[in-house]
Amino acid sequence: MFEPADPVVLRDGPQGVGPVMPALSRIQTPLRRQVFDHVRAQGRAARADVARALGISAASVTATTAELIALGLLREVDGASLDGREATRGRPPVALEIVPEGRCVIGVKLGDERHTAVLADFGGRILADAARAASPGRRPLDELLDEVEALVADLRSRAPGRTAAALGIGLPGLVEHHAGQVAWSPLLEGTGIALREACVARFGVPVQIDNDSNLLTLAELWFGAGRALSDFAVVTIEHGVGMGLVQGGRLFRGAGGMGLEIGHTKVRLDGALCRCGQRGCLEAYLADYALAREAATALGRDPRQSQSPRSMLETLFSEAKSGHEAAREIFARAGRYLALGLANLVQMFDPGLVILSGERMRYDFLYADEVLAEMQRLVLPAGRLPVRVEVHAWGDLVWAQGAAALALIAATDEALGA
Amino acid sequence: MFEPADPVVLRDGPQGVGPVMPALSRIQTPLRRQVFDHVRAQGRAARADVARALGISAASVTATTAELIALGLLREVDGASLDGREATRGRPPVALEIVPEGRCVIGVKLGDERHTAVLADFGGRILADAARAASPGRRPLDELLDEVEALVADLRSRAPGRTAAALGIGLPGLVEHHAGQVAWSPLLEGTGIALREACVARFGVPVQIDNDSNLLTLAELWFGAGRALSDFAVVTIEHGVGMGLVQGGRLFRGAGGMGLEIGHTKVRLDGALCRCGQRGCLEAYLADYALAREAATALGRDPRQSQSPRSMLETLFSEAKSGHEAAREIFARAGRYLALGLANLVQMFDPGLVILSGERMRYDFLYADEVLAEMQRLVLPAGRLPVRVEVHAWGDLVWAQGAAALALIAATDEALGA
Repeated sequence: MFEPADPVVLRDGPQGVGPVMPALSRIQTPLRRQVFDHVRAQGRAARADVARALGISAASVTATTAELIALGLLREVDGASLDGREATRGRPPVALEIVPEGRCVIGVKLGDERHTAVLADFGGRILADAARAASPGRRPLDELLDEVEALVADLRSRAPGRTAAALGIGLPGLVEHHAGQVAWSPLLEGTGIALREACVARFGVPVQIDNDSNLLTLAELWFGAGRALSDFAVVTIEHGVGMGLVQGGRLFRGAGGMGLEIGHTKVRLDGALCRCGQRGCLEAYLADYALAREAATALGRDPRQSQSPRSMLETLFSEAKSGHEAAREIFARAGRYLALGLANLVQMFDPGLVILSGERMRYDFLYADEVLAEMQRLVLPAGRLPVRVEVHAWGDLVWAQGAAALALIAATDEALGA
Repeated sequence: MFEPADPVVLRDGPQGVGPVMPALSRIQTPLRRQVFDHVRAQGRAARADVARALGISAASVTATTAELIALGLLREVDGASLDGREATRGRPPVALEIVPEGRCVIGVKLGDERHTAVLADFGGRILADAARAASPGRRPLDELLDEVEALVADLRSRAPGRTAAALGIGLPGLVEHHAGQVAWSPLLEGTGIALREACVARFGVPVQIDNDSNLLTLAELWFGAGRALSDFAVVTIEHGVGMGLVQGGRLFRGAGGMGLEIGHTKVRLDGALCRCGQRGCLEAYLADYALAREAATALGRDPRQSQSPRSMLETLFSEAKSGHEAAREIFARAGRYLALGLANLVQMFDPGLVILSGERMRYDFLYADEVLAEMQRLVLPAGRLPVRVEVHAWGDLVWAQGAAALALIAATDEALGA
C-alpha cells in the first residue's frame, strides 16, 4: 500500500520546457463547414451576416458560398420575399438557405419493445415515419440488420422516389461513436460489434451510430429546447439511466466517445449490485430492475411467482399512490438517489438546463417537489442560481428524429468532404 | 411526493417543429484568432500549411496574416534557417511565427502559504519569477490586491523595462471565470467578489481569473503532458480535491464556469460532514482535514491538545508506514474513495489521460497499486482499455505558469479585439 505504484510517472517540474503551444488547430472547422452550419443554424442568412458572424472577408464568403451552391447544398433566395418571418431592418434582398431537397436522410431508433424510423429532408423536416414492434434480448448482428432493412423498406414505400444519402442509428448500450462500434448492447450478441461498417456494407450509404441518450440530446439540440441554448444536459431514465450533454453548441464526447455513463457512476462504496456486475452504481438504486427487485419484499409476494419487472413496477407505483408505506419508501429512496445523481451532474458539468426525459418520466415521483428541492440542496450553493430543470415526456418519434440529425451530420460530412 | 412538481414543464412531442437548426455559429472562432492560434500551436508554420490546416484559401491566409503582422503579433522568418528542428520535406523558405517580444504577461498564483508569480513573453517563455510567503485565512479584497501588487513589483525589479500587457490570477475556491467573480475563496472575505474588475482598476491591464485547478490544467496543456493531447483530466489533491478538464484542446467550462467540482460530488447519501456544510462529499473522505479529524482517534490523542491538521497528518502518515493498523486503515479508506472518485470522473468524462497532481502527491498511498487497480475495477470495462494515469509532483512555479497562460489568452483577446 505504501510503495510507489508501477504505471505512474513521477516527474520534476517543467523547468526548461520551451514555448511550444498545444495544437489548438486540431479542433478547427473547415470554412465551408462553418459557412454551411451557420446558414443552417439561421435558417436563412445574407452573405454579409455570414461574414460578420464568422469574422471573415466578404470575398471569402462569396468564394465559399459559390462552392456550396455548385455542390447543390445552398441556394439563393429572394431576401425580400421572406414571408412568415419577422421583418429585419436593412435585410439585403438576397439570402442563402439550405436546399431542403438537396439530400434525404434516414434516422432509426432501435429499442427493447419498438423500433422507429423517420425519413427527413436536408432541412430536418420529417417526410415519412415508420415503426415496428421489436422483441427484447440480444440477437446476432445480421438479424438486427434485417430489422433495420424492414424499417427502411417501410419508409421507402411511404415516400417513393426518395433516396437517402445517409443513415443514423441509435441503440441502447455502450456505443463507441467515433469507432462506429457497439461495445455492448442489450440488443446485440457479442461485444465490440462493428455496427457502422456492417450497415455501410448493407445499405451503401454513410452511417453514423450512437447511443440512444445522445439521440435524444441531438433531438433537443436541433428541434427542441436546446435550439436556444449552447449548454444543457439531458438525463434519460428508462431501463437504465443515461445522459447526454451539449457544450458550446456541440454534443460532448469523451476522448473515446464513451463518457457520460452517469448510470454507472458509484454513489456508494460496496453498494447495491448493478446489472453491470459492479456495486454502488446510481442505476442500481434507480432503474426499473432495481425497484422491481425490492417490490416483491415490499408487497409480500413470493418472488418465484413474481410478475414481469414492468408489471411489478406498475403495481408498486399504484400501491405507493394509495399510501402503502413500504412501496412509498422504495420510490422515496429512488427519488433521493436521483437527486444525488442530478446534483453530481450539475456539480461536474454546470449545465444551463437539465432536461429529464424518457418514458419513465410519467412516474411523477421522479420529479416531485421534494426530489428537485433535494437536488438543489445537494449542489454547492455559493453564488449560484438554482439549476433550471425541465421534464419532457416525449414520444418514440423524437428519438428517431435525433437519429435523423445524426444522419444529417453524416450527410453533411460526406457532401463537404470532411 | 406523488404530485407533479411546480418548477417543471411537461410538454407534448415536437410535432410541427420546423427545420430550425441550433445556432452552431455561437461557437465559431474568428479567422484571425484561428490563424494566430494555429501558428502558436505549431511554433512556426508556412502559409500553405495554415491554409491546409484551416481549410481556407491561400488568399484568405495572405490577407489575414498581413493583418496579424501589421498588429506586431506575427512575423516572417526564413523557413530554411529553422535550426534545431527536424527537417521537413518540401518546407517552403518563408514561415510565420509569434513575435515573442510582442507582448509580456504576468501570471500569479495565490495560495494558503505562498504566492508565486512569473513574467512570461508572448511565446510563453518565463523571463522572471517571484514568490512571497502568505498567511492563510480570509482577508479583505484590498489587502489581497496589495499582496498581488508586491509580487508584481518584485517581477518588475527583476525584469526592468518590461511592461505586462495582461495579468492572469489563480486562487483556490469557487471562481466564476466568465463573470470575473470569486463566489467563495478561503483567501477572500465575503462572497461574489468582483476580483477581475478590482484588478483591472488597480493594474490597468486586461485580467483573467480562474481557480487554481484550472491553472494547473492550463500549465499541462501549454507546457506539460497535455501538449500532445486534446483530451485529459487533471485531479489536484491539496487542502481540498479539485479538477480541470481539457476537451478538444480547450479548457472545459460549464455554462456558468462553475463545473468540475469533483470534491463536492456526493459519494454517499447522508455521509461524512464536509467543510462546505453538506454531507457525503468526496472531499469529506479524502482531503487533509478529513484525515486529520480521524487521526486523533486512531492515535489515541486528546483532541483538545491536538497538533495542527498538517502536522497531525504527517504523524499519521509515518505511523501508517511503520505498520500502525488504525492509521493504515484511514489511508486505505481514503485511497478507496479516491479510486471511486477517479472512476466516476472517467465514467463521466472519458479522458484520454488522468494526471494526478498537487503537493499531496508525495503521500504515496494516493497512487498505490491498489488504488489505481481499484479505480480501473470501478470503471465499466466493456471494450475499454484501462485509463492511463500519470502522477506529477510539480513545484509551485507551474501554477504561476498556468496563470501566465491565462494571461496570454487575455492578451491575445485584447490584441485581436476578440
